[in-house]
Amino acid sequence: MQKQVSFEKAYKTKYPEQIVIVVAKDKKGKANPITLGWTMIASYKPFLMAIAVHKGHYSVKCIRHSKCFTIVYPSVDMAKAALFFGEHSGRDTDKLAQFNTRTAPAKKIDSLLLTNAVANFECRLVKQIATGDHITFVGQIATAHINTKKKKRLYSLGTGHKLGAV
Amino acid sequence: MQKQVSFEKAYKTKYPEQIVIVVAKDKKGKANPITLGWTMIASYKPFLMAIAVHKGHYSVKCIRHSKCFTIVYPSVDMAKAALFFGEHSGRDTDKLAQFNTRTAPAKKIDSLLLTNAVANFECRLVKQIATGDHITFVGQIATAHINTKKKKRLYSLGTGHKLGAV
Repeated sequence: MQKQVSFEKAYKTKYPEQIVIVVAKDKKGKANPITLGWTMIASYKPFLMAIAVHKGHYSVKCIRHSKCFTIVYPSVDMAKAALFFGEHSGRDTDKLAQFNTRTAPAKKIDSLLLTNAVANFECRLVKQIATGDHITFVGQIATAHINTKKKKRLYSLGTGHKLGAV
Repeated sequence: MQKQVSFEKAYKTKYPEQIVIVVAKDKKGKANPITLGWTMIASYKPFLMAIAVHKGHYSVKCIRHSKCFTIVYPSVDMAKAALFFGEHSGRDTDKLAQFNTRTAPAKKIDSLLLTNAVANFECRLVKQIATGDHITFVGQIATAHINTKKKKRLYSLGTGHKLGAV
């Protein structure tokens, strides 16, 4: 049986929620990572992925500047990094350097891969749509990468940024 | 370490993937459910949710006709229904009736709730965007409902439509 509740209450049933890290370079060439939960695949042919980024985030500027971004599926051993990337702004911090994150250059776009991740998807920006207080960016996959070792994806397990395996 | 692979291979690292059932009425008033994995929240203020539906699906017609839809978080005990709704077309089947699904009228839109679900989100269509071979529909939440009993959400656990709890 269902009972009517506020969205704030209802949407807490969303867990476990997938986590991605999105990396895009700013105009100085600094690669900036942000941790997001709001993402989906949006097409199979061509391969498109969508992310919703809050309007106020520095990543909006970075993606608009470089017109490309990497969508990273972090592994469970990246939980601390994902938390750090989600809680700090790249406006005045080099988050990847500060967290001593292992990276590699992307192959087809001007961005970075996170080498400890489960997978990396190189995306070229094809659409951006205003969706309320977020911008939904749609990227077309230029190429993709997976970890040579089998690793588990990182999920958000509940309110208060509990991150872990499922 | 990362190795470059096709998107087809890389995107199989997405599991477990959340599952939703989207319900929208066709022009005859028949409520048609479809099971989807490609969905995300797209805004907090106002509350927006996005779904990507393959262009060829009957649900595209239903959503365009009724301009509203319910996004349902199915519970683990709805695995068989979710599989059935995902594998059949509503063009010539009354899927809810055929599966003897428990429903209730939505409160603020012309659609149905699935009463065994973890949660139901009543959405009014606010945007539709062509994304490759899918249409991305954005809905604004009119109201929401949760189950009076604590239930686990249903996930897709791997290729071949393995559905279950995480």
